[in-house]
Amino acid sequence: MAEQVRAIRTRQTILMSAAKVFESRGYQAATISEILTAAGVTKGALYFHFQSKDELAQGVLSEQDQRIVVPERASKIQEMADTVLLHAHRLQVDPLVRAGVRLSMDQQPGLDRSGPFLRWGEISTEMITKAQAQGELLPHVVPAETADVIVGAFAGIQSMSQAVSDYADLPGRVSALLRHLLPSVTMPAVLASLDLSDTRGADVYAEAVKILEAQDAEPDAGIKTPTA
Amino acid sequence: MAEQVRAIRTRQTILMSAAKVFESRGYQAATISEILTAAGVTKGALYFHFQSKDELAQGVLSEQDQRIVVPERASKIQEMADTVLLHAHRLQVDPLVRAGVRLSMDQQPGLDRSGPFLRWGEISTEMITKAQAQGELLPHVVPAETADVIVGAFAGIQSMSQAVSDYADLPGRVSALLRHLLPSVTMPAVLASLDLSDTRGADVYAEAVKILEAQDAEPDAGIKTPTA
Repeated sequence: MAEQVRAIRTRQTILMSAAKVFESRGYQAATISEILTAAGVTKGALYFHFQSKDELAQGVLSEQDQRIVVPERASKIQEMADTVLLHAHRLQVDPLVRAGVRLSMDQQPGLDRSGPFLRWGEISTEMITKAQAQGELLPHVVPAETADVIVGAFAGIQSMSQAVSDYADLPGRVSALLRHLLPSVTMPAVLASLDLSDTRGADVYAEAVKILEAQDAEPDAGIKTPTA
Repeated sequence: MAEQVRAIRTRQTILMSAAKVFESRGYQAATISEILTAAGVTKGALYFHFQSKDELAQGVLSEQDQRIVVPERASKIQEMADTVLLHAHRLQVDPLVRAGVRLSMDQQPGLDRSGPFLRWGEISTEMITKAQAQGELLPHVVPAETADVIVGAFAGIQSMSQAVSDYADLPGRVSALLRHLLPSVTMPAVLASLDLSDTRGADVYAEAVKILEAQDAEPDAGIKTPTA
């Protein structure tokens, strides 16, 4: 059991170091030996978990967004907005999330960029479908179409923010995006009760971290560490 | 004069070849010798026009969107939508535009990615400001904010389309983006007269090319070749 926990920790250390190297150097320029140096682990330990640079990149991509999540909300449209605003905030503070986005935007042959788009598309479609079932949306809405617009638009807004301000203006830009998109799909009475402000992401993050810390304080916390 | 025309043509040949190499290989992996081979020009000819790979990339970026433009429209919101839909269509058919977008999305140290975002932001702000002055927009609209949402969102929608379908589904995605964004900024009566369909981009392209061909048929057409 102790060995298993150690292996999970080593895997996390390698992924965090890979994230930092991928974020600063990009997929193509990054080398496994740079990641080894950054992680401070042996070659054997790294290859036990990841056979190649591509597997490391896929590991970083799939490791995003697994532990810090938006708590369930009564309004599913608020829950979706919170997911977007939380992700924007995490881009400012979490190297794993920054690297994941950089990797999914990098257009490298051999690295499939479609995964994160499709995964986020499915998550968003599910939330929008729930919002529709609850009567929160205007009758013309096609959930998968609206989901893809939000996912694609967010990807570009974050890229623009990274290019012009290194993410400093991201919360404001994402708030503006939601204020432009949601009125065309949301019932007016629901719209009036949404919080789409640029400080919302940091608040949701603090809330999510608090919930996570409470879980980690429980005796069986070790088992909850993601192993995907 | 003949020599000047030849120099302009050589420059265009080099830029088209650089565009293809940048698009398929990315900025970092692309080499000047690959571009030389693709262009079929001498090293001297290339260095006469461009001193470095960075200058070639900046040349490709600044060469976009200069000759094929949307004709003036009575509705400035339609003109802006047409600009977006035309750009989406050109991404499907023009290597220079594809390479320009790839370069502006590539996150390479040493290559400033903010230029295209800021330039598109200014162009869009100008169009939205005109639309506002004509009374086409709802009173709360802040032109620069709406412009940045459209520019950023478009960048991501095209990246998502490239990742999941190699641009095959781009017109439908861009039409969906505009149908989601414009209702929150446009007066209902104006909105009802807009064409935001997914075939609009190809129609505007055909219209723009026709105008360009008519200009090129004039005797002084050579002078109109861009030299920027």
